[in-house]
Amino acid sequence: MSISDLSKRVIFPIGDKLISKNFNGTVWLKMLTPSGSDCPIGNVTFEPGCRNNWHKHARGQILLVTGGRGYFQEWGKPAQELHAGDVVNILPDVKHWHGAAKDSWFVHLAIEVNPEKGQATWLERVSDQDYNKLK
Amino acid sequence: MSISDLSKRVIFPIGDKLISKNFNGTVWLKMLTPSGSDCPIGNVTFEPGCRNNWHKHARGQILLVTGGRGYFQEWGKPAQELHAGDVVNILPDVKHWHGAAKDSWFVHLAIEVNPEKGQATWLERVSDQDYNKLK
Repeated sequence: MSISDLSKRVIFPIGDKLISKNFNGTVWLKMLTPSGSDCPIGNVTFEPGCRNNWHKHARGQILLVTGGRGYFQEWGKPAQELHAGDVVNILPDVKHWHGAAKDSWFVHLAIEVNPEKGQATWLERVSDQDYNKLK
Repeated sequence: MSISDLSKRVIFPIGDKLISKNFNGTVWLKMLTPSGSDCPIGNVTFEPGCRNNWHKHARGQILLVTGGRGYFQEWGKPAQELHAGDVVNILPDVKHWHGAAKDSWFVHLAIEVNPEKGQATWLERVSDQDYNKLK
């Protein structure tokens, strides 16, 4: 599926390519809330194989999956496969990553909880060895 | 479209019928976050013609429309028609209502901002005269 096909199948705008050292692969971001919001909501679209680095949020984050197939993993636990309609409630300071399956685009809303009380801390890359174990 | 057809077309679970004097018509609610969350997210599904009463939120609310056709109106302003992909950022203490068009189901996520700093205040019904002006 091309990115133009994808854009016809998802609900919220895809936005612009995000240039970030915290993602391994190409990712698009559209912020749905005004700058400085108390409740920042981003629409995040991962190309197949793209995932973010391990990271944690001082006050937690909520993911609402709207399309495609991907994964969420907490440090020390098995990865969970995600599809449209899945909700992930990430607790404060829990080390985790999320991203697309190898063969699928993946789209989720990401809601940062109480950002005024602390930001995300970015850590190391998910190893290819670990990622490649996933289907 | 029946409610069972609708449930196949929307992303997040429809949940249960909400019994509330603050809605005029039948509405379903599924909370997507745990009780006591700092960032409560509900999936709200309105039957055709259903809308909520005028109300306001102490710290604001964000609506993310995922399906159907409906309206949002701020007190003293024209109603805005809403479709999937629309986002409404409702500022603190702004009196407003939202709900379905007469001939369409309407589904949105509703995110309450900083609920620990104050709750919603529910006010009077949207008059039939005002609602019936809408298409």
